[in-house]
Amino acid sequence: MALNGNAVIGQSGGPTAVINASLAGVIEEARKHAEIQDIYGAVHGVEGLLAEHMADLRAEDDAALALLPNTPSAALGSCRKRLTEDDYERLIAVLKAHNIRYWFYIGGNDSADTTHHVGRLSAEAGWEMRVIGIPKTIDNDLAHTDHCPGYGSVARFNALATRDAGRDTAALYTVDTVKIIETMGRNAGWITAATALAREEPDDPPHLIYLPERVFDQEQFLADIKREVDKGRGCVVSVCEGLRDASGEPLVSFKHAVGTDSFGHKQLGGVGDYLVNLIAEELGIKARFDKAGTIQRCLGVAQSEVDVAEAGLVGAAAVHQACEGITDKMITLERVSRDPYRCETGLASLEEVANAERPVPEEFISPEGNDVTSAFVEYARPLIGAPLPPYARLKLRRVRKQL
Amino acid sequence: MALNGNAVIGQSGGPTAVINASLAGVIEEARKHAEIQDIYGAVHGVEGLLAEHMADLRAEDDAALALLPNTPSAALGSCRKRLTEDDYERLIAVLKAHNIRYWFYIGGNDSADTTHHVGRLSAEAGWEMRVIGIPKTIDNDLAHTDHCPGYGSVARFNALATRDAGRDTAALYTVDTVKIIETMGRNAGWITAATALAREEPDDPPHLIYLPERVFDQEQFLADIKREVDKGRGCVVSVCEGLRDASGEPLVSFKHAVGTDSFGHKQLGGVGDYLVNLIAEELGIKARFDKAGTIQRCLGVAQSEVDVAEAGLVGAAAVHQACEGITDKMITLERVSRDPYRCETGLASLEEVANAERPVPEEFISPEGNDVTSAFVEYARPLIGAPLPPYARLKLRRVRKQL
Repeated sequence: MALNGNAVIGQSGGPTAVINASLAGVIEEARKHAEIQDIYGAVHGVEGLLAEHMADLRAEDDAALALLPNTPSAALGSCRKRLTEDDYERLIAVLKAHNIRYWFYIGGNDSADTTHHVGRLSAEAGWEMRVIGIPKTIDNDLAHTDHCPGYGSVARFNALATRDAGRDTAALYTVDTVKIIETMGRNAGWITAATALAREEPDDPPHLIYLPERVFDQEQFLADIKREVDKGRGCVVSVCEGLRDASGEPLVSFKHAVGTDSFGHKQLGGVGDYLVNLIAEELGIKARFDKAGTIQRCLGVAQSEVDVAEAGLVGAAAVHQACEGITDKMITLERVSRDPYRCETGLASLEEVANAERPVPEEFISPEGNDVTSAFVEYARPLIGAPLPPYARLKLRRVRKQL
Repeated sequence: MALNGNAVIGQSGGPTAVINASLAGVIEEARKHAEIQDIYGAVHGVEGLLAEHMADLRAEDDAALALLPNTPSAALGSCRKRLTEDDYERLIAVLKAHNIRYWFYIGGNDSADTTHHVGRLSAEAGWEMRVIGIPKTIDNDLAHTDHCPGYGSVARFNALATRDAGRDTAALYTVDTVKIIETMGRNAGWITAATALAREEPDDPPHLIYLPERVFDQEQFLADIKREVDKGRGCVVSVCEGLRDASGEPLVSFKHAVGTDSFGHKQLGGVGDYLVNLIAEELGIKARFDKAGTIQRCLGVAQSEVDVAEAGLVGAAAVHQACEGITDKMITLERVSRDPYRCETGLASLEEVANAERPVPEEFISPEGNDVTSAFVEYARPLIGAPLPPYARLKLRRVRKQL
């Protein structure tokens, strides 16, 4: 039997280039279901809900909604907030007061945890409500899904940036010999691994890739750099901001961390800088680093159209499933065909998603721990969408010497 | 009378997103002139020439040449080399041995200096050769030209990146309140200024812009940050890597001096990192920084099509002028119409270009020194090409509280 009432949709955690495509997917699908009356946006996620700050999404213009899938970052505002017991109590009161019967929350495992608890507590309070999590994370570290919306676009950015910054190094390696590309990724190396998608020919950059799934071994790193530099064409290295040493400590953390976020995540940074100095000191080789930071997760012109489409798909599926009576689940992506690539949506337990992390598996990391495997490339290639724009490769046929 | 012989073309200094468009312009135009026989590429600029390392550019495929304008970085390889007297002597010998009668060198003021001296010394040696400089620098600091090819694309990148990273901060400012965007530009603030092109509405990011043309005043900076943060929407700040304090010293070099001994000691990597720590220490506010580094000058998807076209134009003009008998000049861009924007090529003395730098003028900097003026925006807007992709702006009409 149809459950009549209002729906609320929120965005949580780090923004992505396509999280608004999921929002658009939810709105578009919700408008098709008569049992969903008002469609509310939680402004800055649960933070806004606690303050009863919601926006009426039926009041938005069609023109704005049409632009939404290609508009990066979180249009509703986002947050990083772990709710206390009191918060949850307040939240349930807000949801009841606004007759919310459908809860959609776009985020990673912390958001899945929040959504699971909201569902459990509303049930305990006798308030019938369907809660569905919508996957989103550039980190691509959610379990029970082939990949996460947001990843394809950050992967595309890093493939483009590594290819182009790699060409930069190829041109000027006699001056700036090593280039470090520092990517995001707190505990998982999926984003760093994606720089491998920059390659078109065997010796293309990046020449070395270091993921946090492996202990960072400074001696091995320096030996790797030296070997690559000795090939006489510069060396492009992608590293994850979350690299750790043998003791499990991050290589670098900010000198003055202004606390941590309320989930206890430390803000990381400075790996690129650290390695540039290390290379200078130990090898006497000039290096520089690029750290695109939040630009990598939000640059609109690097959106993967596959990612945009899938982000919309999981949003729409969330509404569809909720209207079918499903609750306490996260929408997943299941790869039903590898060639041609095709994904469909599925369902996973929110609780299972909340309590798991998916690092880059062994079979995607080279035995030496300084590269990814072709299996990874096969996995990730379809996610970045269209092939990278074609570039000229000059033959540079050498003119015979006269002197 | 036509001067028959071979031509050489080189690329020098930092790569750009469009320096290959100038190369393509030279090749395409050179093929139209019967007096130009072989067309040689200097591999890694004068460094390659000294080693007689040249490539036969008539041997390149049309397909590769067609892709060249949209291929970032320097396809011939680049260098940063100030030639000694012995180098110049060797260079003239190489040019004579290969019957080079046309010299085209794409670069900034150091390259103009090199080209001027090559012209002077070949004339002294009785070797008739026409030398033309082709402007290129993301820094946009060459005198005697309206702007420099390469600038429009780095400006477009920074406009796009600031808009998108600004949206990221707008979504998550309750966690990451301040965002520093560190741009390139050692002595001139043109690149940093271009972040203003991200704005579409008055309160859009960037909220503060600091150029190296003004002394960086730490107290004023902190007061600016505090005022902006108090507006309750986060604060996006663009800063130039070359910011200097009242003593004329770069902001970060004295910081480096503090941590001298340090084996494995974490040194500060730049202005962005320094300011993040300053804001944390002095204001207790969480900030983060994005430093796109060389990605900003080479990201193909951020090419300005105006920049691509003009880079091609100055390349073609160089050949055309040389074949007309002109020598010892740099091609310039002259803005012949503001609305609609239109540029034509002109000529400037290489010696004058070599010995001048053009900082951002006073009328382009706000009186407070923390922003640019509308006159700057009017100057720079046409250079980035097509309008930035349109984004959704939701109304977020607030739902009435029930509790």
